[in-house]
Amino acid sequence: MLKTPLLHPEILRALASAGHGSRVLIADGNFPFSTETPTTATRVFLNFRRGLVNVTDVLETLGQTIPIEAAIVMETPDGQAVPIHETYRKLLPSTATLSARKRHDFYAEAKAPATTLVIATGEERRFANILLTIGVVSTPLPGQP
Amino acid sequence: MLKTPLLHPEILRALASAGHGSRVLIADGNFPFSTETPTTATRVFLNFRRGLVNVTDVLETLGQTIPIEAAIVMETPDGQAVPIHETYRKLLPSTATLSARKRHDFYAEAKAPATTLVIATGEERRFANILLTIGVVSTPLPGQP
Amino acid sequence: MLKTPLLHPEILRALASAGHGSRVLIADGNFPFSTETPTTATRVFLNFRRGLVNVTDVLETLGQTIPIEAAIVMETPDGQAVPIHETYRKLLPSTATLSARKRHDFYAEAKAPATTLVIATGEERRFANILLTIGVVSTPLPGQP
Amino acid sequence: MLKTPLLHPEILRALASAGHGSRVLIADGNFPFSTETPTTATRVFLNFRRGLVNVTDVLETLGQTIPIEAAIVMETPDGQAVPIHETYRKLLPSTATLSARKRHDFYAEAKAPATTLVIATGEERRFANILLTIGVVSTPLPGQP
Amino acid sequence: MLKTPLLHPEILRALASAGHGSRVLIADGNFPFSTETPTTATRVFLNFRRGLVNVTDVLETLGQTIPIEAAIVMETPDGQAVPIHETYRKLLPSTATLSARKRHDFYAEAKAPATTLVIATGEERRFANILLTIGVVSTPLPGQP
Amino acid sequence: MLKTPLLHPEILRALASAGHGSRVLIADGNFPFSTETPTTATRVFLNFRRGLVNVTDVLETLGQTIPIEAAIVMETPDGQAVPIHETYRKLLPSTATLSARKRHDFYAEAKAPATTLVIATGEERRFANILLTIGVVSTPLPGQP
Amino acid sequence: MLKTPLLHPEILRALASAGHGSRVLIADGNFPFSTETPTTATRVFLNFRRGLVNVTDVLETLGQTIPIEAAIVMETPDGQAVPIHETYRKLLPSTATLSARKRHDFYAEAKAPATTLVIATGEERRFANILLTIGVVSTPLPGQP
Amino acid sequence: MLKTPLLHPEILRALASAGHGSRVLIADGNFPFSTETPTTATRVFLNFRRGLVNVTDVLETLGQTIPIEAAIVMETPDGQAVPIHETYRKLLPSTATLSARKRHDFYAEAKAPATTLVIATGEERRFANILLTIGVVSTPLPGQP
Amino acid sequence: MLKTPLLHPEILRALASAGHGSRVLIADGNFPFSTETPTTATRVFLNFRRGLVNVTDVLETLGQTIPIEAAIVMETPDGQAVPIHETYRKLLPSTATLSARKRHDFYAEAKAPATTLVIATGEERRFANILLTIGVVSTPLPGQP
Amino acid sequence: MLKTPLLHPEILRALASAGHGSRVLIADGNFPFSTETPTTATRVFLNFRRGLVNVTDVLETLGQTIPIEAAIVMETPDGQAVPIHETYRKLLPSTATLSARKRHDFYAEAKAPATTLVIATGEERRFANILLTIGVVSTPLPGQP
Repeated sequence: MLKTPLLHPEILRALASAGHGSRVLIADGNFPFSTETPTTATRVFLNFRRGLVNVTDVLETLGQTIPIEAAIVMETPDGQAVPIHETYRKLLPSTATLSARKRHDFYAEAKAPATTLVIATGEERRFANILLTIGVVSTPLPGQP
Repeated sequence: MLKTPLLHPEILRALASAGHGSRVLIADGNFPFSTETPTTATRVFLNFRRGLVNVTDVLETLGQTIPIEAAIVMETPDGQAVPIHETYRKLLPSTATLSARKRHDFYAEAKAPATTLVIATGEERRFANILLTIGVVSTPLPGQP
Repeated sequence: MLKTPLLHPEILRALASAGHGSRVLIADGNFPFSTETPTTATRVFLNFRRGLVNVTDVLETLGQTIPIEAAIVMETPDGQAVPIHETYRKLLPSTATLSARKRHDFYAEAKAPATTLVIATGEERRFANILLTIGVVSTPLPGQP
Repeated sequence: MLKTPLLHPEILRALASAGHGSRVLIADGNFPFSTETPTTATRVFLNFRRGLVNVTDVLETLGQTIPIEAAIVMETPDGQAVPIHETYRKLLPSTATLSARKRHDFYAEAKAPATTLVIATGEERRFANILLTIGVVSTPLPGQP
Repeated sequence: MLKTPLLHPEILRALASAGHGSRVLIADGNFPFSTETPTTATRVFLNFRRGLVNVTDVLETLGQTIPIEAAIVMETPDGQAVPIHETYRKLLPSTATLSARKRHDFYAEAKAPATTLVIATGEERRFANILLTIGVVSTPLPGQP
Repeated sequence: MLKTPLLHPEILRALASAGHGSRVLIADGNFPFSTETPTTATRVFLNFRRGLVNVTDVLETLGQTIPIEAAIVMETPDGQAVPIHETYRKLLPSTATLSARKRHDFYAEAKAPATTLVIATGEERRFANILLTIGVVSTPLPGQP
Repeated sequence: MLKTPLLHPEILRALASAGHGSRVLIADGNFPFSTETPTTATRVFLNFRRGLVNVTDVLETLGQTIPIEAAIVMETPDGQAVPIHETYRKLLPSTATLSARKRHDFYAEAKAPATTLVIATGEERRFANILLTIGVVSTPLPGQP
Repeated sequence: MLKTPLLHPEILRALASAGHGSRVLIADGNFPFSTETPTTATRVFLNFRRGLVNVTDVLETLGQTIPIEAAIVMETPDGQAVPIHETYRKLLPSTATLSARKRHDFYAEAKAPATTLVIATGEERRFANILLTIGVVSTPLPGQP
Repeated sequence: MLKTPLLHPEILRALASAGHGSRVLIADGNFPFSTETPTTATRVFLNFRRGLVNVTDVLETLGQTIPIEAAIVMETPDGQAVPIHETYRKLLPSTATLSARKRHDFYAEAKAPATTLVIATGEERRFANILLTIGVVSTPLPGQP
Repeated sequence: MLKTPLLHPEILRALASAGHGSRVLIADGNFPFSTETPTTATRVFLNFRRGLVNVTDVLETLGQTIPIEAAIVMETPDGQAVPIHETYRKLLPSTATLSARKRHDFYAEAKAPATTLVIATGEERRFANILLTIGVVSTPLPGQP
C-alpha cells in the first residue's frame, strides 16, 4: 500500500501523465461514461454500487494530489440551485473558478480532447458531475528546501 | 451463474459503462452489423440460428436491467404497420417514446456515436430492429431505504 | 445506471464469465495484488484511498449477485481471533463454509488458477483478505414461474 | 444473414478452424467458463438469461454443421440417471459414442488442449454440460456430384 | 471440416457479421488490396499463385452462402466488353443487378465503408474485380417448416 | 501482383522467417488445425471449399520457393498404401526423404515447436497431410554470378 | 532461405498485399520516416549504418520482384541535377515514367494513403528518396505455359 | 550498457525512426503530456521527481545524438525574458534558430503531427518547454573515411 | 504535476498494484534488464545517460512512497566491501534488513515472480543493483485522524 | 539520421534494454530464425537479399556500440576450419573468448532465454552464425571527464 493519500494505480498513472490545462471528469452514476467522453481518455470505474463511491469522496482526495485551477458543473434545466454544488465550492481550493453549463454543453466540454481521465462513481444525486481543470505546481514540496 | 435476470458478461459490461442518453441497438438477423454501427460500439452476437434469439427476448430482459427513455424502429418503405412494433410498444415502459425512421435514416441513427452496444439476433421478422435510448435511475432499489 | 445492486462493469463481466468452483478474491489494501494472483485473473482496483472501499462493502453486494459456497480467510501468525472474520461470518450465507489459512498458504490458494477475479480494496484492517468460492444457482428467480 | 443453419460468426470461425479430434464444450449456466477451460479456446457467450439459449438448441444446430464422433457428459455424484442425457442421445448421430465422467474428471477433459470452442448457455438444468469430439467429413455434399 | 459448402473460417466470420447492404469485394490478382480498401474491412488472401484461386471459384461458393442483391464490375478504359463479366452475369442470381464503373470510380466504391470483406485472388484475367452487395434472407431454409 | 511463383503475403512472410530445419504443415480439410499445431505457428487458411485448394497445388508451388530436405506423411491404421503419397514422392525433390507416421505420432510431430507454418487446405482425400522440413540454399541464384 | 531474389519477410508480405497503383517509398537516411509517411504503411528499417543498405541496392531487387509503372524523386531547391537520379533512370524499366517534386510536395505524395510500404535505408547521398508506383503483371511467368 | 552517450531504449528507437523536419518535445513538469501532444508520438516519462531529470540534462545529450536545425520555446504572457531560454541558446548549435510562441500557439505546434517524441521531465522552472526540429546529417562520422 | 514526491506515471501505477512481499529492482546501468527479470514485471527505463539517474536518487524517493521491509544487494566475487552498499544502509529504514547475494544468486532472486517493477538507471558504479521487498502500511497518514 | 555509428531503431532499442550476460545472435541466411530463437527475443530482419547484409557488416558496427565479452560459433560436422571464423576473431575485441558448438548445441544456446536480440542477415556463407555475450561498460566515454 502506498504512503500517499490516493492509492489507485490507474488514476495515479493518468494524473501523472497529465498537466496544466488537462481535465478530469468525476461522473455521477447516470453519466454516459462510454459515449460522452473522448476515446483517448482513461476510464476508471469506481461505481461499485449506488452511493459507493461518491463524487465528494473522489474530489476530496484528488484535491490532495493535484492542483485544481477551475471546475465546471452541470446545471438543472430550470437553473435551480443544486445542493451538492455548494459542497463542491467548499471542497475546491479558494483560487479555483467554478462555473455551470447546461446538459448538452456540459457533454461537449466533457467530450473535448482535454479530458484525460474519467472517474465513474456510484453517486445517486442528480447533476453531480464535475469537470476539473488541472493547474500548476509552483511551490516547493513541504519539507524540501 | 449470476442471480440477476440478465446473465451475459459482455452485455452487462457494456450497459454498466453506459448511461443517460447512450443507445443500444437490438438488430434483426438481416441488419448489417459490421457496416452500419459505430466502430466504438461493443458488438455482441446472439444470432445463433434463425429465430434464436429473437429481438423480443432481448428487449424484455434489457427492460428489467436498464431504464429505457425512448426507442426508434425502422419503418417499411410504404409506411405499412409492422405487427412486431405493436409488441415493442407493450414491452417498453409506458413513459418511453417510440418513433419510426425510414431505412437509411434509421441506419444513420444506429451509426451515430451514441450507440454503445449492438446486439445481433437471429430474428427472422423484417423491420424488427429497435434502437433504445437509456434513461435515468432515480428511485431507490427495492428493499433499500 | 443499472437497476441491479452491483454496478461495476468489469466485476459484472468477470462474475458472469465464472461459475461453480471459480473463486473471487477481495483483497485488503496491503495485499500484493500483482504478484500473488494468477495472470489469468481480472484485476479490479477499488482501492481509491485508505478505508474506501472496504472489504465488507464489497462482500455484501457480491452476496446479492452470486451464490457463495465457501470462503477462506488469512489467519494471524499466532492464531489470534480477527474481529473482521466475525463480520464475514455474518455476511456470508449460513450454508457457506468459512476456513482459515496461514499467510503463505493463503497466497498459494489465491494464486491458483481457480481465482478468476481479484478486487483490490483500500481496507486498512490487517488480515482482512477473503477468498470466495462461487456456488450454484438452482432455484427460480423471484417473480418468475 | 447467411443461408446456412448456423449463423453465429465466432462459432463458425472456431468450427472451421478445428477438425478431426478437436472438441467443443456446450456448457450449462453454472459451468465455470473462465476457470475450467483452456486459455487457447474461443469462448462464446450465449447465456443471455436463464433458459435462453439452452444446450439442446445449440447441440441440434451444431449437429447440422459438423460431424460428431463422440460426446462426454457429467454424471451426478450418486450416478443417478439425468433426463437431459437421454435427449442428447437422441440428438447425437447414431454412430457417436456417449460416455459420462464425474465432475472433476469432466473438468479435466474440458480443460485439456483439445477443447477449441466453449459455448456458454443459460441452461438451468443441472449436469447438462456436453463435450463433443469432432469427426471426419468424408462423403460428398448433398446436391454435388 | 464443416458440412457447409463454404469452409473458410475468416470468410464465414465476416459474412456472418455483415447484412443487408454490406459489400464484399472479390479482387483479381492485380488489385491494390492494401491501399484501395477500407481499413475496417477484413482482408482474406486466397491469392496463392497465378490462377489459384480464381474469382469465379469464389463467386460461385459465396452465392450458395449469402443472398446477393447487386454487383459492380470494373470496365475497361475504352468500354470494350470483358468476357469474364458475361460469366459473372450467369453466376449471379437473376434478381441481382450488375453495373460497371471506370477504374477510379470502382476504387471509390470499393474503399467506401460498406465494404466489409475483401477476398484477394490469384485471378490473372484483367478487369475481373467484382463488388457484391448482400441482400436479405426472407424465405425459410430448405428442409425446415 | 508479384513476379514470383508464390503470391500469398502471409505464407511468404512465414517462409522468409524460417530456415534450415523449420517445418511447414500442409493439412488436409479434416486436420484439427487449431488444436494439433503449435500456438507459435502462423496459420493460413486456404480451405475455401472442398477440393479448393488441394495439398498438391500447395506442395508444387512451395517446392519452387523453398528447399525441401525431408517430408513426413500420415499412414493409414492398417498400413495400406495411399495413392496421394505416390504423387507427393514425385513432387518432392529427389534428394528429400519421405517417411510415414501413425495418426497420433504424426500429430506429435506437427505440434512440435519446429512447425512454423500451417497451411489449411480443402483437400478431401484422406491421409493427405504432409509435414515438410526446410533445407539449405547453397547454390547461386539462376542468372547470378 | 527462400529461392527468390528478395528475402525479407515483411517487405514480401507488404508487396504481396499491394497492387496496381500502390506505392513504395525507398527513403534515404535523413528522411523523416515516422512523421512524413502514412500510419497505415508498413515501415521496414534497413538503415543499419551509413551507406548500408543503399537505395540503389533496394531498387534493383524490388525491380526483380514487382512491376514498376512510375517513380517520383525529390528535386533540389535550385533544380540542380542529382547524379543518383541518373542511376535510378537506368535501374527502372524503360516503360516507367520518372518525375521530380520539390521537398514538401514530395512529402505530400509520400504521406498520401497510396503509400503502403516505407523502406528506410542508410543512404548518405542527399535527395536520394524515390517513390515507386506498382504496375500490372500481365505476362506469363517464365517457364510456365 | 551502450557505449553511446544516450542510453535510453525508447528515446533511441524514436530518434532513429525520425528524420529531417521531425520534432522532439522536451517538456517541463507542468506540461499536459497526455492532452497536448499527438497520439502518434512516442511518450517517454523521465519525470521521476521534481528537478530530476531537468530539461537541460536532456537537451545536452540529445544534441550529441541528433542534428538540431531549429527550436521553439514558450514565452511568458507578458513577454518577459526567461533565464532558462538563455541556457538553451548556449546548448543549441550556433546554426539552429530559436524562436518563441505564446502558450496556446506553443501547444498547437507541439500537437502537430511532426512531433514524434515527447520527453516528460521533472523540470520545476516555468516556461521551460522546448520543441526541437531535427536537421540533416551530411558530414562523415569522425574516424570514418 | 502531482503534489506527491514521486511523479512518474508507470512507477506509481506499478507500486500501487503491488503490496506486502512484492519486490522492486533498482538496476545499475550494466544490469541485463531484458533477460534477467520476469516477463510479468513492469520495466521502466530511467537510464537516460551515464550517471543520470542514479540508484540512490531512485531509492530515496521510493522510500518516501512505499514501506520497505527488506533489501538485497549483489556482492563482489571476492566479498570485498562496496561503498554504495553503505549508502543504501543509510537510506533504508532502520527496520529493514539488508543482505547480499553472489551475482547469479542475485539474478535468480531478481527473476523470481515476486519482482513486479524493474527500474533501469544510468548508474555507473558497479554492484549497485538493489532489490527491495515492500512492507506493510499500518499507521495512519500524517494529518489524518 | 543519428550521429551514432549504428542507426537501426529496433536494434538500438533492444541493445539498450539488455546488459551484462545478455546475448545477441547474428544469424546467416539459412538459420531457422522463427523456430530456434526464444519467443521473448526481438527479431530484426536485415536479410534483404543474398549477401546483403552480411554477418561481418553487422558484427563490426555492433562492436562499436556494445562491449562484447564472449562469442560462440557453429562448427562443421567434421570439425573443419571455417574461414569466416578467422575473420570474426579479428573483428572481436582481443579480450573476448571465442568458442564453437555443434549444430544442435548451437541451436540450444541460441534458444536459451539469455538471447535478447536476433539479427537475420542475407549471409550466404555456411556456418556463419555468431552468438555474442554482452560485457560491462566500466570506462569513461571518450571525450568525457
